[in-house]
Amino acid sequence: MMKNIGIIARQNQPAIVESFETLAHVLRKCHKTIYLDTLSEGTVKNAPYTLLTPQQLAEHCDLIIVIGGDGSFLHAAHDVIDSNTPMVGINRGKLGFLADISPERIEHDLEAIFNNCYTIEKRFLLQAHYQDQTIRALNEVVLSSNSKSSMLEFEIFIDNTFLLREKSDGMIFATPTGSTAYALSGGGPILHPELNSIVLVPMFSHTLSSRPIVMNADHVITINILEKTGILSADGLTLHTVTENQTVTLKKYPASLNVLHPSSYDYFGALRTKLHWGRRNG
Amino acid sequence: MMKNIGIIARQNQPAIVESFETLAHVLRKCHKTIYLDTLSEGTVKNAPYTLLTPQQLAEHCDLIIVIGGDGSFLHAAHDVIDSNTPMVGINRGKLGFLADISPERIEHDLEAIFNNCYTIEKRFLLQAHYQDQTIRALNEVVLSSNSKSSMLEFEIFIDNTFLLREKSDGMIFATPTGSTAYALSGGGPILHPELNSIVLVPMFSHTLSSRPIVMNADHVITINILEKTGILSADGLTLHTVTENQTVTLKKYPASLNVLHPSSYDYFGALRTKLHWGRRNG
Amino acid sequence: MMKNIGIIARQNQPAIVESFETLAHVLRKCHKTIYLDTLSEGTVKNAPYTLLTPQQLAEHCDLIIVIGGDGSFLHAAHDVIDSNTPMVGINRGKLGFLADISPERIEHDLEAIFNNCYTIEKRFLLQAHYQDQTIRALNEVVLSSNSKSSMLEFEIFIDNTFLLREKSDGMIFATPTGSTAYALSGGGPILHPELNSIVLVPMFSHTLSSRPIVMNADHVITINILEKTGILSADGLTLHTVTENQTVTLKKYPASLNVLHPSSYDYFGALRTKLHWGRRNG
Amino acid sequence: MMKNIGIIARQNQPAIVESFETLAHVLRKCHKTIYLDTLSEGTVKNAPYTLLTPQQLAEHCDLIIVIGGDGSFLHAAHDVIDSNTPMVGINRGKLGFLADISPERIEHDLEAIFNNCYTIEKRFLLQAHYQDQTIRALNEVVLSSNSKSSMLEFEIFIDNTFLLREKSDGMIFATPTGSTAYALSGGGPILHPELNSIVLVPMFSHTLSSRPIVMNADHVITINILEKTGILSADGLTLHTVTENQTVTLKKYPASLNVLHPSSYDYFGALRTKLHWGRRNG
Repeated sequence: MMKNIGIIARQNQPAIVESFETLAHVLRKCHKTIYLDTLSEGTVKNAPYTLLTPQQLAEHCDLIIVIGGDGSFLHAAHDVIDSNTPMVGINRGKLGFLADISPERIEHDLEAIFNNCYTIEKRFLLQAHYQDQTIRALNEVVLSSNSKSSMLEFEIFIDNTFLLREKSDGMIFATPTGSTAYALSGGGPILHPELNSIVLVPMFSHTLSSRPIVMNADHVITINILEKTGILSADGLTLHTVTENQTVTLKKYPASLNVLHPSSYDYFGALRTKLHWGRRNG
Repeated sequence: MMKNIGIIARQNQPAIVESFETLAHVLRKCHKTIYLDTLSEGTVKNAPYTLLTPQQLAEHCDLIIVIGGDGSFLHAAHDVIDSNTPMVGINRGKLGFLADISPERIEHDLEAIFNNCYTIEKRFLLQAHYQDQTIRALNEVVLSSNSKSSMLEFEIFIDNTFLLREKSDGMIFATPTGSTAYALSGGGPILHPELNSIVLVPMFSHTLSSRPIVMNADHVITINILEKTGILSADGLTLHTVTENQTVTLKKYPASLNVLHPSSYDYFGALRTKLHWGRRNG
Repeated sequence: MMKNIGIIARQNQPAIVESFETLAHVLRKCHKTIYLDTLSEGTVKNAPYTLLTPQQLAEHCDLIIVIGGDGSFLHAAHDVIDSNTPMVGINRGKLGFLADISPERIEHDLEAIFNNCYTIEKRFLLQAHYQDQTIRALNEVVLSSNSKSSMLEFEIFIDNTFLLREKSDGMIFATPTGSTAYALSGGGPILHPELNSIVLVPMFSHTLSSRPIVMNADHVITINILEKTGILSADGLTLHTVTENQTVTLKKYPASLNVLHPSSYDYFGALRTKLHWGRRNG
Repeated sequence: MMKNIGIIARQNQPAIVESFETLAHVLRKCHKTIYLDTLSEGTVKNAPYTLLTPQQLAEHCDLIIVIGGDGSFLHAAHDVIDSNTPMVGINRGKLGFLADISPERIEHDLEAIFNNCYTIEKRFLLQAHYQDQTIRALNEVVLSSNSKSSMLEFEIFIDNTFLLREKSDGMIFATPTGSTAYALSGGGPILHPELNSIVLVPMFSHTLSSRPIVMNADHVITINILEKTGILSADGLTLHTVTENQTVTLKKYPASLNVLHPSSYDYFGALRTKLHWGRRNG
């Protein structure tokens, strides 16, 4: 049974504070114990809830509720991933694929969740090893040239089998979760979240016939930088500089994120809205 | 142990006859029994081999060898699929993804195969049910408008969940095997053959944001024709006319094709050659 | 001065009849003489206006007003083109690039037009010669394979200089007017209507590096059919079968269409609405 | 008559020195006076030719010959543009669109040129004004985000008419010359060099329906940076940082480059080779 509920609401905006208050009211009504992460303290000043560090929050709670947009959910996920605690999002951003609950449905959806009307979806992450550092991505790892004035040259191996050698602006390695984010702008396909697959999307490839390739997420991908300097980023955030003769290794992160969806969740519906599917243009 | 070897070589061309003779020589040297399908009889006139119908051949033999290009392999596959007999191709066409053995390596590769140096790769097929007819596809099922002057309007359900409503030239439903064929020309991604996935590629969609979507191949896909007349084809061949208010159902065919690859097989290498990967253009 | 006004309103739909009545009322108030084309007679039964054949209407009138969508405007244009008479459209369809005047602005926009507040934009047409027949297109000429099961092979010359040899589903040859129609679905760029250019858009080309190419509209384009049978269509309508060893010639039609725009016309605004520009997806 | 010939050969590589020697031999045989730019001095040490600064060279000579690839030609063009002096390139790089003469045809092509067998093609440049600085581009001006972790938001006006507001990785503004370079990698169409047009190619646009748009090159384009910091580059080289609330203005540079082509020049042939046109993939 879900008893201890952690809230992450790190952006101090009126809409987020408003949803926080609605949420806190519902949780108290349902006799839940509320915890708040220390980074959210400023959003709801002097709120009478126990503060925990993000990692403590994830360990201690039975459910983590993030208030914000997909970006907030994405960042919070990095703190929650290792705990296996389910996460659900209250969406105060633009259309969300990750933050499902709309503000006006907080009471309805949460009562349903506490009555066990929900599904848990596993979303896997990628991890990139570079020298002695590791970065993790729920959406995508991007290797890109550090300058518009020079392309990056690199080669990619899949489980030690040579895949290709490219000279381009870079390459996007996206999970199904990330396939509707940056990779989509780069011409990648949509990967249904059920898939244990990743997609490699070439960026401004000079080989005009370069195409996105989808493969099993269990492979180990090795990238050797051959010429020029690249930038390695994960979920648009962590940035490392990688240089000639260095190697980046990519593989699936061992733990998966448990994304909790209210029963009203409709992935295809989100796709239709986001991509204007079902409408005709003219 | 492979003892009975069936040969399919249906196109009467000098290059095919030449490879047939090389192959027959190697098989005799290896003490194999050679069978020929009745549709190949004309290619090698008066050859002293037992003739079997394509289905009998598949049932009776331990290995089926197709001489021709990817097209010949594709067509023969429909006769072999239900028998589980492994197939291998000797390539006399353009660059092949299915027909692996190059003519000059017949002896080398076959001796290796008979010494158990090979891999078997499962390739699944799609089947489309329409009224009381079923068609099967190793590459792709295409639903397209029957005329350049009128678009087809249809809706798609995935396991009874509504996916989208489209008005376009049609939709390609491709297997990983077909992802490097027609679907690729239509802007689809490459699906590694290891994947149990299909890709839906919209054809000249009027919704500019329509994108290929990759999903698990185990779903049942239902297509309702809403307006105008469509053409249903499988592997570019079987053609049915489907009209307003009719329904097409797509799912995975229960049997898989056992494609045998010599040990020299390199899927990524075939991709690089076909797509000019690894080369720069300028 | 505009005195004689021709109306084309061929689709018998309540919305079109309603706009016809509003329009007739405004024209009478402005002391204009109204003419109707014979194909529109059924739309407004027993209307007390002089009937003329479409060609007579175009010759006799100072302005042709089409009530309908872009499709109606497109079809009417073929009757008006040789007369140089300006055309304007009242839009009763989906978002229009050609039919500018929205129904609720009929009175406002027409009074402005009669007060000389308008612009005239020249839109050129393509003509395709094939054997002893000629077809004309305001949007595009499409040469496509007549079957999903066989690609068309053809070569293209520009003013007798070899451009390319293709084996594909076909090729779209679009004017700037047509660049926002079928050619856009096929991956072509938008050509601003001011350009004297055409764009060639390959359809499902097997050469993955085939790209749309934009060139001056004054060239003569020659297409030789090398293999299989093609279908030649213009503006999605006229269909001819073209077979092996036949030649199609494409060039600019000598006359241009005078499209009249009310002063509120905003081409970029129409683009933004049609293409969802200016919106973000997520 | 061409009497004074300027040579630009700035890269000190054996292949370039070799072509320099062949060229000098041909020019002496044809009784031409040879000049060398000061930046090429190191390539051919102690060569007995008059040295001039790049600008003096362009002013003083009747023809400028560049030895190198398209990149060398591009850079040299910036020194030659204001002089109207024709330029021709001897290609020592990869396939060139700008450097036409292959090393083994130096004698043949130059003798033909001196016998007036050549064509002059005008290639226009773009200039971008930013604060009190101006940069020029023969290929393209690129405005891009300065970081993978934040998109750039900007709006574009065409002659003071609002075109669009975008949040993306940036926008490429390419000339016909540049349409086969970076813009092509970004999904832009090929613009025939005869066109007085530019193409705007959105980079990783979040509006999935963003499309390249081709327009007349005589417009003035105004770009307002709304959010985040951008990088402005020209021909992949000059880099400026542009920040929120700043404005970049783009227009055609008043002078055109006179590119001289030997009579064997075939633009479509270069396209076919570069884009693998005319080949089938499989």
